[in-house]
Amino acid sequence: MLSLVAVSSHSSAESIDIDNYRQLVGDALIDEILHLSDGLKGLRLCNINATASGGGVAELLNREVPIYRALGIEADWRIIHGDKAFFEITKSFHNALQGSEFQLTDGVRQDYLEHNRTCAELLEVSYDIYVVHDPQPAAIRYFHRTRQDKWVWRCHIDSSSPNEQVWEFLRPYIEAYDAAVFTAEPFRPPDLRMDRVAFIAPAIDPFATKNIDLPQNLCRQAIADSGVNLREPLLLQVSRFDPWKDPLGVIQVYRLVKKQRPGVQLALIGAMAGDDPEGWDMLETINAEATADPDLHVFTNLTGVGNMEVNVFQRGADLVIQKSRKEGFGLVVSEALWKEKAVVAGAAGGIPMQFPKGYHQYLVSNAEECAAKLLYLLDNPDEVAAFGRAGRERVRAEFLLPRLVHDQLKLIADLLERGGAQTKA
Amino acid sequence: MLSLVAVSSHSSAESIDIDNYRQLVGDALIDEILHLSDGLKGLRLCNINATASGGGVAELLNREVPIYRALGIEADWRIIHGDKAFFEITKSFHNALQGSEFQLTDGVRQDYLEHNRTCAELLEVSYDIYVVHDPQPAAIRYFHRTRQDKWVWRCHIDSSSPNEQVWEFLRPYIEAYDAAVFTAEPFRPPDLRMDRVAFIAPAIDPFATKNIDLPQNLCRQAIADSGVNLREPLLLQVSRFDPWKDPLGVIQVYRLVKKQRPGVQLALIGAMAGDDPEGWDMLETINAEATADPDLHVFTNLTGVGNMEVNVFQRGADLVIQKSRKEGFGLVVSEALWKEKAVVAGAAGGIPMQFPKGYHQYLVSNAEECAAKLLYLLDNPDEVAAFGRAGRERVRAEFLLPRLVHDQLKLIADLLERGGAQTKA
Repeated sequence: MLSLVAVSSHSSAESIDIDNYRQLVGDALIDEILHLSDGLKGLRLCNINATASGGGVAELLNREVPIYRALGIEADWRIIHGDKAFFEITKSFHNALQGSEFQLTDGVRQDYLEHNRTCAELLEVSYDIYVVHDPQPAAIRYFHRTRQDKWVWRCHIDSSSPNEQVWEFLRPYIEAYDAAVFTAEPFRPPDLRMDRVAFIAPAIDPFATKNIDLPQNLCRQAIADSGVNLREPLLLQVSRFDPWKDPLGVIQVYRLVKKQRPGVQLALIGAMAGDDPEGWDMLETINAEATADPDLHVFTNLTGVGNMEVNVFQRGADLVIQKSRKEGFGLVVSEALWKEKAVVAGAAGGIPMQFPKGYHQYLVSNAEECAAKLLYLLDNPDEVAAFGRAGRERVRAEFLLPRLVHDQLKLIADLLERGGAQTKA
Repeated sequence: MLSLVAVSSHSSAESIDIDNYRQLVGDALIDEILHLSDGLKGLRLCNINATASGGGVAELLNREVPIYRALGIEADWRIIHGDKAFFEITKSFHNALQGSEFQLTDGVRQDYLEHNRTCAELLEVSYDIYVVHDPQPAAIRYFHRTRQDKWVWRCHIDSSSPNEQVWEFLRPYIEAYDAAVFTAEPFRPPDLRMDRVAFIAPAIDPFATKNIDLPQNLCRQAIADSGVNLREPLLLQVSRFDPWKDPLGVIQVYRLVKKQRPGVQLALIGAMAGDDPEGWDMLETINAEATADPDLHVFTNLTGVGNMEVNVFQRGADLVIQKSRKEGFGLVVSEALWKEKAVVAGAAGGIPMQFPKGYHQYLVSNAEECAAKLLYLLDNPDEVAAFGRAGRERVRAEFLLPRLVHDQLKLIADLLERGGAQTKA
């Protein structure tokens, strides 16, 4: 059987309650969610993805699944099995959907399909609806030849200009689904032919440990304790140590800023996964820079830095950087904006859509531009404050968990024709 | 060169300041530390161990080194290089010093010595004093044939009844040191022949993110959000998923308690390391139990649980378990006692010495006994409160960072004959 992921079951139903969000997102949205979920009570929903931890999809499912359960939907989350070679293939597919080069061989095709066939056989338990995330398990639907259930492919990748060879290979397996969901309309591959395509952006949970309100004095104390000088400005990037997130570029930006503002400090926070040799090499490079520079701070989950420390640093930083070259959505941008931080970020993937109106000049495309924007903001605290306020309001209106839950439930209700008008794309 | 570990440099000297601890440990101890460090200003001190993250030694060095630097000592922390085979050997040596079986072959001896010889050659930079931690790099002193410096071997393991073969192999390399330090007198191998042996227990830092005061409402909110029902009791063990820490035994204990108290919940928090296949297997077993039991919660650094979340759970738990079979010191016991928690623990290694007087009946040797003590405490909140107060006072008096810093500086001053009388063992 495909492994179930243990998520908080909230048998108490005290803590995870959609009503808690009313104060933040308003009654209309919550009432609509309750109306939709009334029609879906007892529905058996299965999310399938590649990993229970690491990256945005696992983070989203960790927050979504408990909410669905609290709403009376029997939501599960299962992960596929695979060996190292398979996950190397799917990592390449991920990059290829973002447009990278990749040489698709017959061996790769066969390995991918064999793994998906096995996973489909291992699925065993049956559900009313399946939501399959990203390319790794995308062909499961093809091999799971049932017709009474509904299948949604949820793509978290900016696949607007995919590598043609990989996309042509995957396309028939994806077109076997009842619906596909992309983060935004521009992310849809141009030649995808499906009756139903929806666009649903991810969201952050304001009540998660990573976003929960924290006393300012606690943040200052914890940051000072980690060696940061509170009297000098602190720049922050929170991201995996991955070339797409460009941490080495961030160090370059920091050095440019430091020429003008010698006291400036940079904190890089990144989670490491056991199976990512590229990440380990990059961490070594970054650590070598950090040992030589007392103003460059590097923190990882290996030394006990978790979600609450990320929260602390996001609240305590003077300016937040997200210098991504490619990005699915970039949840970390919404996290920082929610904490009223000014963010200077790469204009990649879902980042621009998160920026508040009037602040798109802080989307940058190279290190020099990034450094210049940071220096400008360091000199203009009023702009920083206004940006922060506008950012929080944008996230409140568009990127909090209830909006995501609503959109997903609406799609499911439409697919199952349980109330609500159908939308076709 | 052996890699330097980046630790907070505290150029600001605002946050890490030994004076901050006066309120907790009193003036006499702090004044003595300042007196000792006056005599050691500019001293070049090098700590050498096997890893920059994971486990108690890395945690201690992360807290100690910044304090030494703030005191004017030029303290560094370097880690040795080694391949997988070498670290498997040294893991076996670690277990063998704790008394495990191990077949010492010529190949193992040679591999161990070759790695230590290489590390000694890579050391390059010279220091006034070296503190080498645990068996992994123990033979470096033998290969680094200098005589103007001083060398301390710091053993964090309960090596009171070591595997004879491994101990006989390591002994001459250890006896080449100027001093050896054990956590407590009973941990010293009986036949170690050295002029100077000191006994210094580890300590926790009350200002570290893991121990810093947190508002009770924040702890409750974060714990509830993670799926725990605050209206029912929560048991907690924080430990690596390692047979010595016996997490599966803890689950067995929890099930015994649950027979009498059906609402009881268990949270297991463990950090995973990339290179520990045994830990991954154990996590899989534990996760399988957790998916089937909504009252069993499992958290790891992989899903963003870090030091501050550990702090939150230690403060929010009703009772803390530390069911170790073998233990070096067991810092986590002091962490819990400092938060005024009643702890039911295995009578292993350094755990008993941390327990306050009058509460040694909560040291247990099997699951049934552990469950019985937990049930008793669940029924006797006054005992829990008194235990917690006594525990905090014991930690305050014996196991906070300044006492450790004092003892280490005293040993160093004695070795260098810079003030203070010499102590011989």
